[in-house]
Amino acid sequence: MDFLQLDTGAADPLYRQIYLRFRDAITQGLLQPGDRIPAARALALELGLARGTVESAYGLLTAEGYVEARGQAGTVVTPALARHAPVAPTPRHAPAHDNLGDAASTTMPFQMGIPALDAFPRKVWARLAARAVRAMRPQDMIYPPWAGLPELRIAIAAYLQLSRGIDCTPSQVFITNGYRNSMELVTRALLKPGDGVWVEDPGYPPTSDLLREAGMRVAPVAVDGEGVMVSHGIASAPQARAAIVTPGHQSPLCVSLSLPRRLALLDWAAQSGAWIVEDDYDGEYRYVSRPLPALQSLDREGRVLYSGTFSKVLFPAIRLAYIVVSPAQVPRFEEISRTFAASGPTLMQHIVADFMNEGHFARHIQRMRRLYAERREIAAEGLSAVLGKHVRIDPQPGGMHLILRMKGHHTDRAVAARMREHGMSALALSERGVLPHGASALLLAFTNVDTPERARELGKRILKLMA
Amino acid sequence: MDFLQLDTGAADPLYRQIYLRFRDAITQGLLQPGDRIPAARALALELGLARGTVESAYGLLTAEGYVEARGQAGTVVTPALARHAPVAPTPRHAPAHDNLGDAASTTMPFQMGIPALDAFPRKVWARLAARAVRAMRPQDMIYPPWAGLPELRIAIAAYLQLSRGIDCTPSQVFITNGYRNSMELVTRALLKPGDGVWVEDPGYPPTSDLLREAGMRVAPVAVDGEGVMVSHGIASAPQARAAIVTPGHQSPLCVSLSLPRRLALLDWAAQSGAWIVEDDYDGEYRYVSRPLPALQSLDREGRVLYSGTFSKVLFPAIRLAYIVVSPAQVPRFEEISRTFAASGPTLMQHIVADFMNEGHFARHIQRMRRLYAERREIAAEGLSAVLGKHVRIDPQPGGMHLILRMKGHHTDRAVAARMREHGMSALALSERGVLPHGASALLLAFTNVDTPERARELGKRILKLMA
Repeated sequence: MDFLQLDTGAADPLYRQIYLRFRDAITQGLLQPGDRIPAARALALELGLARGTVESAYGLLTAEGYVEARGQAGTVVTPALARHAPVAPTPRHAPAHDNLGDAASTTMPFQMGIPALDAFPRKVWARLAARAVRAMRPQDMIYPPWAGLPELRIAIAAYLQLSRGIDCTPSQVFITNGYRNSMELVTRALLKPGDGVWVEDPGYPPTSDLLREAGMRVAPVAVDGEGVMVSHGIASAPQARAAIVTPGHQSPLCVSLSLPRRLALLDWAAQSGAWIVEDDYDGEYRYVSRPLPALQSLDREGRVLYSGTFSKVLFPAIRLAYIVVSPAQVPRFEEISRTFAASGPTLMQHIVADFMNEGHFARHIQRMRRLYAERREIAAEGLSAVLGKHVRIDPQPGGMHLILRMKGHHTDRAVAARMREHGMSALALSERGVLPHGASALLLAFTNVDTPERARELGKRILKLMA
Repeated sequence: MDFLQLDTGAADPLYRQIYLRFRDAITQGLLQPGDRIPAARALALELGLARGTVESAYGLLTAEGYVEARGQAGTVVTPALARHAPVAPTPRHAPAHDNLGDAASTTMPFQMGIPALDAFPRKVWARLAARAVRAMRPQDMIYPPWAGLPELRIAIAAYLQLSRGIDCTPSQVFITNGYRNSMELVTRALLKPGDGVWVEDPGYPPTSDLLREAGMRVAPVAVDGEGVMVSHGIASAPQARAAIVTPGHQSPLCVSLSLPRRLALLDWAAQSGAWIVEDDYDGEYRYVSRPLPALQSLDREGRVLYSGTFSKVLFPAIRLAYIVVSPAQVPRFEEISRTFAASGPTLMQHIVADFMNEGHFARHIQRMRRLYAERREIAAEGLSAVLGKHVRIDPQPGGMHLILRMKGHHTDRAVAARMREHGMSALALSERGVLPHGASALLLAFTNVDTPERARELGKRILKLMA
């Protein structure tokens, strides 16, 4: 067990070090499928550790499928690994087809919805977090206010005013455990089972999945170059009680909802008494001009709920998002956030509030906007240079991914499937909706493509799969 | 503004220090209702700070009702404070009747559901948190697995086996954002709107509120000295699809569900295909004998879901709980946790997993069990000595609160209301259910009553209110 060099001064706890050493030994082939690993008791003795420490590591390896207990015969490296990569107990957070190599590193190339993690100011973050946890007082340990920490609600309201033209008081801002939790609050607060809800098509399938589980009737509405086709929605599902839309950059087509469409949508909502949820998941990231003001800022009738998240501007593991409701809806949302205990851990809310209040947030967004503009260029140029015969890359004003339209005989689904088999992440546009639209394109995030060399190298890997 | 001594080396950020200094100055009467406070710009100049820092502090003070902006006339200490205490924008997390003095300190005397925060090992916690955040790698920044971090699921499964006799694999453990989120997952996964659900009466009103908002029909079932009366449930709501029960220490009566009742309940569930949710919110805290094994450990038919939380054994602001489901239900719960993105921030899950894996958790529970046994004695003796003429204190094997039965002409509601008016927390047993049962008692948490002197002093405060 030469690979088991532990570092007692390291930040990682010992059980995790053992787990990581074994995992690396297995993925690198030092330990082969079928090889026996030492009994926990024996290894603990050898390393001079508590048996529980080794057992925790083994438990993790077992749960993730790296090793298997074989009763009397001891524990062995999972024999099936010879054929395919093991699967973590809950691998569904990635768009599927995670494989071991990539799960062990960071994320897969082109993985959607993941910001440029290398550019996140981790030291500042760690400093604020350490400070917040040291300063923890008894009143920070009781239940946080259900609607969220006042500090954070205030900071968000101020930010939205400045950056998105949204005029709201902190009491209209409700902190949630993430975008899906925001949508859940909306369905609980304003809708009832059986209600029709417009969703964009192509769109973001998790939204439709959530609405269906919540008992709503999902009504897909077509999207064109001006965004969601309001007239199509009115024709096909006039009785809908709500519409969930992405006016900033349509997900996944990246188009902005045109002003006439914005007005038509607001008009429909006002006349039919329906609600509009503006999902502004990455509204900050527009590169060719100033970000557009939010749809909510045009709303005179209090029909728009604005949904924001920290997953894209900070990072997804924070699990904090928010929803801004009209003043008339505040009492109902207070009731619902209390009943379902929305908002998140006090510590996370404190860290984000401090990050915003001390100017790091605005600086980070500025920096990321420049970085993404650059990476988008790099990725588009590198991929075009190599794949130009097969794809045409959409020009687009913002967002976090490229759209590669298929020109030849290849279908987006076939190429995306091949890419996933070969350790890349890829989404096919034709899989993102249910309406027939004939568009065939790959959706590839550029946020983690950091050099021209990397872009061309990835392009070549895709080209090889198309041969 | 002599009170504005800021400490640039302090753990609290400057905006927060300003906020706290003003708040204290107002609550202590240094600043009187109607007094003008300096313009943010002027104060920032005077203190040599960025204007935004002062504005953040003022925003917080405004949101919480301490000060009011008066346009041209500047900002003043809220005149209405002369009559009553201001209310934070979302004060509903406490059982109502928070007032300013107490909101500014920690918690109110006798506040239910709050562990002994003074005894929490905050230094260890801060050390683990700082370590976890320093060790944050890109793979810790993407979406956490929806069902929870494998490390935490493994640690919980091992802990439940040892302490509660629950035999489960980590894949049966689903991490949630708290007890209410656990209940929400259960209703999403297993029930449909209109389904009947048994709840204990007297019981825990937030459970009923949540079930009603989720569209369930709530069926109150009476509780006696042996716990929930299964025969009453079968007679009054035989078609119910689920029962939510607290077999360890019934909430709020603290009785344990007797073995015959446990078997009758399991039998009913097996025969009618109903689900039992075992809410084991404080199962660790039994003082006269070993904690009882969980009801789940008797279940042979896979009808019991076990609900645990870290709010009581650690502290509520963590917002982490879990639900253990039968192997047959794992796929359905995986689907539901993915759809609604349950589980919590990666950082919080890491800290708790490390806290468990490194032995702090078991030590903390041991220590708290001794401490609570002691505080329960102290509180019961002190209160009896002073209030013996008016109340009889139930003997009880565990839990985190005392039950003071009213002996004289006082009703629990009247005394509880008076106590709340005078800055104490108090719940009246007669308010905790809808069925008529004639019991009149005060529910008072003893977890933060730390000395005999304190107990007697609090007793005298109550006695005065009864005169």
